[in-house]
Amino acid sequence: MKVILLGAGGLGRTVADVLTRCSDHEPVGFADDAAPAGTKIEGLAILGPTDALAATAAAAGADGAIAAVGNADARRALAARAAEAGLALPVVIDPTAVVSPAARLDEGVVVGPHAVIGPGATIGRLTLVAAGSIIEHDARLADACYVGPHCLVDARARLAAGTVLAGGRTVAQDQQVP
Amino acid sequence: MKVILLGAGGLGRTVADVLTRCSDHEPVGFADDAAPAGTKIEGLAILGPTDALAATAAAAGADGAIAAVGNADARRALAARAAEAGLALPVVIDPTAVVSPAARLDEGVVVGPHAVIGPGATIGRLTLVAAGSIIEHDARLADACYVGPHCLVDARARLAAGTVLAGGRTVAQDQQVP
Amino acid sequence: MKVILLGAGGLGRTVADVLTRCSDHEPVGFADDAAPAGTKIEGLAILGPTDALAATAAAAGADGAIAAVGNADARRALAARAAEAGLALPVVIDPTAVVSPAARLDEGVVVGPHAVIGPGATIGRLTLVAAGSIIEHDARLADACYVGPHCLVDARARLAAGTVLAGGRTVAQDQQVP
Repeated sequence: MKVILLGAGGLGRTVADVLTRCSDHEPVGFADDAAPAGTKIEGLAILGPTDALAATAAAAGADGAIAAVGNADARRALAARAAEAGLALPVVIDPTAVVSPAARLDEGVVVGPHAVIGPGATIGRLTLVAAGSIIEHDARLADACYVGPHCLVDARARLAAGTVLAGGRTVAQDQQVP
Repeated sequence: MKVILLGAGGLGRTVADVLTRCSDHEPVGFADDAAPAGTKIEGLAILGPTDALAATAAAAGADGAIAAVGNADARRALAARAAEAGLALPVVIDPTAVVSPAARLDEGVVVGPHAVIGPGATIGRLTLVAAGSIIEHDARLADACYVGPHCLVDARARLAAGTVLAGGRTVAQDQQVP
Repeated sequence: MKVILLGAGGLGRTVADVLTRCSDHEPVGFADDAAPAGTKIEGLAILGPTDALAATAAAAGADGAIAAVGNADARRALAARAAEAGLALPVVIDPTAVVSPAARLDEGVVVGPHAVIGPGATIGRLTLVAAGSIIEHDARLADACYVGPHCLVDARARLAAGTVLAGGRTVAQDQQVP
């Protein structure tokens, strides 16, 4: 799928990096409200602001979008714009990640390099799992969470919607956050 | 090798997941004392209780077994039943794990996805190393340890027999546990 | 490139392990001042002391060297000897590591198995990143750092020259060490 990245900050660039390793997705550029259109960021262009998404995506031939900003409400708002523009919100899994066939990942989920997701885990819509994080069996992450790099969400733990885990954090077995 | 999984809890299901990625092993089902025979768990059937292991394994064509329960004594007891039933206890290494050719792994060891085992490390019989854990060079893990997910056992550290490390724990260089 | 390993301790053996997985480098042996020449260590020979490096490297056909000792000053001194002997200091990346094409790695950098280096990160000369460590986007590691196994250097963090991070350590976003 040809996808447009919504957000060209550190997270957007990191997801762009994931996409370059994915054979099933192709990034066409960023939509971003801060950087001026035409700017090149690590080889990909800023195509325009996010409030003109339908036109920008059509011009670039994109049929999908990835909301790649850290704030949960901002991510939900960008996903709503993508949906209005008729864009899909694909699941993106780095090819070096290991995802159990018995895990469930909802739309817009991004899984970074070397992440592991165990059997019975559920990852809610628009939740991002950064590099090297491990989601153990039967953990339940609600929608729009952000699991920073190098975290562990151990077996049967639960994250409420919009939870942000800073990098390196461990959530113990059966723990509920917050 | 065709293997039967001893234990159909979270750990058994996680090891089943590892086996689906291993080209050199094929899981034929679970033996478990709690779940009724015939139950399907993520595509694999409960074949019977563990006290009828020889007959169950023969019927399923298994020639190996993996003791996949967290408690060390229970794991040793299941391994003893497997040995009585004439079943091998293979070493199982997830294909995404990195194991030094200069490490030594004893029978029944399971190494999860993205684990790393360095040169000179020794991993005792029935010890389990979960996803993303790193065993550094010259560390010595005795038999029937359980290294939870996302742990570090640093260089030359030692774990006594039956040691359990909760997920995310770091054992420093040269440290002995307990 | 045919490379000679400078240092046959735990770190040298660990780097030798990395090299056996790299298709673009071939280890020819160790130069070490403690172990006697001729000793075999996990299949590779001690070729001689480091003060006769030019002759030893020429005899072994090496055109590159890797300074594989933990102390920063010792590593710089070995690299200086390698340069005097006309040896290159290649970048060595374990094939299981994930390095962004938008990261910059200077000469003599070694990246261990399952490490991840994000876009915009810069890794200075002779800095070593051990197994499973994650260097997030825009982090800046100066020269001759040692990032132990299973560390996180989060986004935009900075490590001064010669910094040593013990295994398992997390450096938070934007943090400067020391």
